[in-house]
Amino acid sequence: MHVHVNAAVSADGKLSTRRREQVRISGDEDFARVDRIRAENDAVLVGVGTVLADDPSLVRFDRDHRESVGKSGVPTRVVADSRARTPPDAAILAGDAPTTLLVSEAAPIDRLSALREASVSVVVAGTERVDLPCALAELESRGVADLMVEGGGELVFSLFADGLVDALTLYVGSLVLGGREAPTIADGEGFVERASFPELSLDGVERVDDGVVLQWTVDS
Amino acid sequence: MHVHVNAAVSADGKLSTRRREQVRISGDEDFARVDRIRAENDAVLVGVGTVLADDPSLVRFDRDHRESVGKSGVPTRVVADSRARTPPDAAILAGDAPTTLLVSEAAPIDRLSALREASVSVVVAGTERVDLPCALAELESRGVADLMVEGGGELVFSLFADGLVDALTLYVGSLVLGGREAPTIADGEGFVERASFPELSLDGVERVDDGVVLQWTVDS
Ligand SMILES: NC(=O)c1ccc[n+]([C@@H]2O[C@H](COP(=O)([O-])OP(=O)(O)OC[C@H]3O[C@@H](n4cnc5c(N)ncnc54)[C@H](OP(=O)(O)O)[C@@H]3O)[C@@H](O)[C@H]2O)c1
Ligand SMILES: NC(=O)c1ccc[n+]([C@@H]2O[C@H](COP(=O)([O-])OP(=O)(O)OC[C@H]3O[C@@H](n4cnc5c(N)ncnc54)[C@H](OP(=O)(O)O)[C@@H]3O)[C@@H](O)[C@H]2O)c1
Repeated sequence: MHVHVNAAVSADGKLSTRRREQVRISGDEDFARVDRIRAENDAVLVGVGTVLADDPSLVRFDRDHRESVGKSGVPTRVVADSRARTPPDAAILAGDAPTTLLVSEAAPIDRLSALREASVSVVVAGTERVDLPCALAELESRGVADLMVEGGGELVFSLFADGLVDALTLYVGSLVLGGREAPTIADGEGFVERASFPELSLDGVERVDDGVVLQWTVDS
Repeated sequence: MHVHVNAAVSADGKLSTRRREQVRISGDEDFARVDRIRAENDAVLVGVGTVLADDPSLVRFDRDHRESVGKSGVPTRVVADSRARTPPDAAILAGDAPTTLLVSEAAPIDRLSALREASVSVVVAGTERVDLPCALAELESRGVADLMVEGGGELVFSLFADGLVDALTLYVGSLVLGGREAPTIADGEGFVERASFPELSLDGVERVDDGVVLQWTVDS
């Protein structure tokens, strides 16, 4: 499986303010770029933190571009959500695109049944928290060869820690959000030893809107 | 006064690991670039957090470049250090370059006398914490027209909050450090309202070493 993380950050590396309120960091040219990346992927994954903070629908994608890369159908939406906290009225469950929840064995049965009624597919992996290597392998067996990840920082850190990220693209915007508690693209515990730092290769640098898009592949 | 913030960050926006241990983020080409910026400035400012974490000497600069920009002497080293916590044996107090401490009225007299014995100049501004507008005005009256700031994130956030930053340059390296508690270039409380976000203009994008240098000016 190919895993591509994409997000927009401020010049100081923040995904949003410390209140975790969504901020418009990029502009129309970047939104069109994101719609093309969604089109290139079989599924789009976010953490439940992003669902609770932003209530994204993740249904937009570039249909012409999808056709041109030879993919059919629509990208599946996926939430990493150990305890099935995604609200039944979340935008990510509405609309025509299918949604899959990655949960752990700690997810309460009643919440899972409510979500299954809303025609959500469920993947159970891990005891307390979603076991990402296992959950992604299950997605792959269900036909997801190309997975886009749109954040947030807790989920993305775990994906890096598990060695699951292949590519990272960041739109860096021209504003400062600040805040020692504001989210960044890789939060979690953090790496401490040089040997554990994921190393990247910078493949692309392109000015987009008022900022710049940086594209890396992850060295294996 | 012209205030230029310069730092090296990881792809995920971190100045160092969550243990606040210094990490080599850039390479020789970037170090030479930093030596040129130091040469262009009358003084180089850091927060006492950086002094305690990294014990930097801040004596290196590009002598030829300094001559070519018409500056004489060496850049003064400055520490924002409300309570005079800079250790008397800190590298920033050693060597031939002069050092100035920005302190508040809360700095204990005995620590100030010990530091004055080490021929440190002292600027008192603010009651509990260094009043940065006031301290920078005093530096300016002492001949500092161009000030470089080398971090860390707590100090730089305050400088942005006080509207004191004119330019921001970041070397973005090709590695991931992660960590919700790792420092970024603008920590502090953080901004929450759109109207308070410092807005920047991206002036330069240049590949350096394995990363990229992004140069912004701050919109006034
Ligand atoms: N600018 C952008 O492009 C962008 C994009 C996305 C998000 N954001 C912002 O990012 C913020 C949300 O980010 P976030 O970091 O708080 O949340 P997040 O990464 O979206 O979600 C984190 C949650 O995912 C769940 N999860 C399940 N398995 C996990 C695993 N193995 N490792 C880590 N997490 C796992 C955890 O909750 P459980 O334990 O309950 O499962 C965890 O709390 C919001 O402020 C949002 O606005 C911005
Ligand atoms: N990669 C790089 O380029 C780079 C550069 C620099 C630092 N770093 C890293 O950054 C970390 C240190 O950063 P940091 O954010 O912890 O410390 P910092 O910004 O260097 O220093 C913060 C301290 O400055 C003092 N200060 C005085 N007046 C202030 C004011 N008005 N506003 C804010 N602070 C004021 C405060 O201590 P008092 O209240 O006691 O005065 C405050 O705790 C270290 O891990 C270091 O390795 C990396």
